[in-house]
Amino acid sequence: MAVVFEPVRLSGNTVVLIDQRKLPNQYHLIRCKTAKEVWHAIRELAVRGAPAIGIAAAYGLYVGLVESKPKGVAAAIRTLERVGRFLKTSRPTAVNLAWAADRIVRKAKKLRTKQVGELIRFVREEAELIHEEDRALCEAIGDAGADLIRARDQILVHCNAGGLATSGYGTALACLYRAKEQGKKLKVFATETRPLLQGARLTMWELKQAGIPSTLICDSAAGTLMQSGQVKKVIVGADRIARNGDTANKIGTYPLALLARIHKIPFYIAAPSSTFDFSIPDGRHIPIEKRPHHEVVEGFGSRTAPKGVNVYNPAFDVTPHEWISGFVTEKGVLKPPYSKSLRCLKSNQH
Amino acid sequence: MAVVFEPVRLSGNTVVLIDQRKLPNQYHLIRCKTAKEVWHAIRELAVRGAPAIGIAAAYGLYVGLVESKPKGVAAAIRTLERVGRFLKTSRPTAVNLAWAADRIVRKAKKLRTKQVGELIRFVREEAELIHEEDRALCEAIGDAGADLIRARDQILVHCNAGGLATSGYGTALACLYRAKEQGKKLKVFATETRPLLQGARLTMWELKQAGIPSTLICDSAAGTLMQSGQVKKVIVGADRIARNGDTANKIGTYPLALLARIHKIPFYIAAPSSTFDFSIPDGRHIPIEKRPHHEVVEGFGSRTAPKGVNVYNPAFDVTPHEWISGFVTEKGVLKPPYSKSLRCLKSNQH
Repeated sequence: MAVVFEPVRLSGNTVVLIDQRKLPNQYHLIRCKTAKEVWHAIRELAVRGAPAIGIAAAYGLYVGLVESKPKGVAAAIRTLERVGRFLKTSRPTAVNLAWAADRIVRKAKKLRTKQVGELIRFVREEAELIHEEDRALCEAIGDAGADLIRARDQILVHCNAGGLATSGYGTALACLYRAKEQGKKLKVFATETRPLLQGARLTMWELKQAGIPSTLICDSAAGTLMQSGQVKKVIVGADRIARNGDTANKIGTYPLALLARIHKIPFYIAAPSSTFDFSIPDGRHIPIEKRPHHEVVEGFGSRTAPKGVNVYNPAFDVTPHEWISGFVTEKGVLKPPYSKSLRCLKSNQH
Repeated sequence: MAVVFEPVRLSGNTVVLIDQRKLPNQYHLIRCKTAKEVWHAIRELAVRGAPAIGIAAAYGLYVGLVESKPKGVAAAIRTLERVGRFLKTSRPTAVNLAWAADRIVRKAKKLRTKQVGELIRFVREEAELIHEEDRALCEAIGDAGADLIRARDQILVHCNAGGLATSGYGTALACLYRAKEQGKKLKVFATETRPLLQGARLTMWELKQAGIPSTLICDSAAGTLMQSGQVKKVIVGADRIARNGDTANKIGTYPLALLARIHKIPFYIAAPSSTFDFSIPDGRHIPIEKRPHHEVVEGFGSRTAPKGVNVYNPAFDVTPHEWISGFVTEKGVLKPPYSKSLRCLKSNQH
């Protein structure tokens, strides 16, 4: 696997991040030598995407431990607990962040070493392991998804289910990267993805780095593009998948799935198995986050609507499982009937 | 009818235009005392929308005639021909522009008066008649469309089929304005309409002027909005309608019509009968204009995608007639089967 960029990496005792707020106009690296600097980078969205945030937090814990120069193991554990609590306040709702910090603190406590140097080395290795696990997950998704892609396929993607949100390989985009590595000649269409333009800003940047020919469209142009016969497949990511396969993903996924269905274009969701929430029977039980008005009307320097207008700005929509041709996971592609294939995934998980 | 704003009007010997490029952030009037100033206003999109451009050109012809201070009728006719040719170069593809200029020159020639004052007065009155005819057309569309709207309806609109594009009352928006005048309490949702944001910038401004409660959405949020049950009707404009009812309109109309169909929401097209092109059998024969890349990637002041990206930016899409619940025209609402109702309109036209 050739990762062409690394959104988060550890270089010596420094966390190096691609500043995603400045893409695509500037490629700027942020170097964090303290836990506080990592906290700011997460808080201010220099790094985004749940897996990427988790990796940044894990390295942040290591950097915080090193900078404290602990005199003994007990002091080191206290520092880890304090830095873990601190990093978790940067974006309190990001699940992977808390998960990564808690995992390292818990394992460090269990280590029961008397050598502070060994503890510090352990924390570094555990953070690197979290990073490595995400790489393996993305690769496995890429392998499964690439099998679906033909030699000269034309694929539509939405938002950024890409390397920038993960360890560098992505979920939906991992399928494209792997297919390219297999020598397949792809052509990719990316929606710009209003309001935050993750497709235009981030996915188009990633595809350019990866050398995959790509074309940007407005979200509203997907229908006529499909009508023209230029889209052979749609692959998108997911934020949460219910027990029956109903899938919450970036706003605009639902109309894309419907358009794909009417044009008889296969529509795939690429996501790790951890995205499946078996506690929820169907999509009606997935809460939809409403985002602030300013994202829509003040996104790019100048106002785009009169002052004081009402804005309806849901972050996600829910696509019914009947419109989904398959789920590309690290455990392979799950096909309908989902009542059967998702049950297998569930028993596999526990 | 209460027009709340006038995109184009004649004040003495001056053409007064709302500068639509500056909306919604500034309400700025442009005062044109010469034909050249009118030419610039049309060329640089201060005034837009085929009917509004036609009215501006008609007044531009009058202003050009007055400023030339013609010594006799022959000189006046020569001036009209020259100014007409000149104004038509401002936006050569705008049908209403050429139509309005040609009509005035042709009728002025037929007048055969010997008094230059009478000729000048005639040109002014003919320009005012063109303006008045558009008002009547919009009002008739508004009357027909308002009959479809219930007391507390919730209506989704797309792009700007509004007063700014016409004499001040619009086509799709005329239906809403008339319904409000009838005392109906509406709630309107407007798509922002990427890439040029006519919905966010112009429709939201118009609805605010008209005092109609309105909410802005990203184009991609229409699906989940319909799913939530908040949309009871969709009304949009049209750029060209084929003989079988297939309709070209602003990009994004096609997915809206499909979403409306799947959610069993009536979907209407509001347009004057002149929009029907009986020379074209169906939508496949409507050419789709591809617009420049910069509209998508440089629209907000700062670049939104990497330099050198490919962009697919069609201006329009074509909605199949089967997905259209009715056409709201100045001659009433045409309902399916269109093979019958559109044939009646055609025989009516000739």
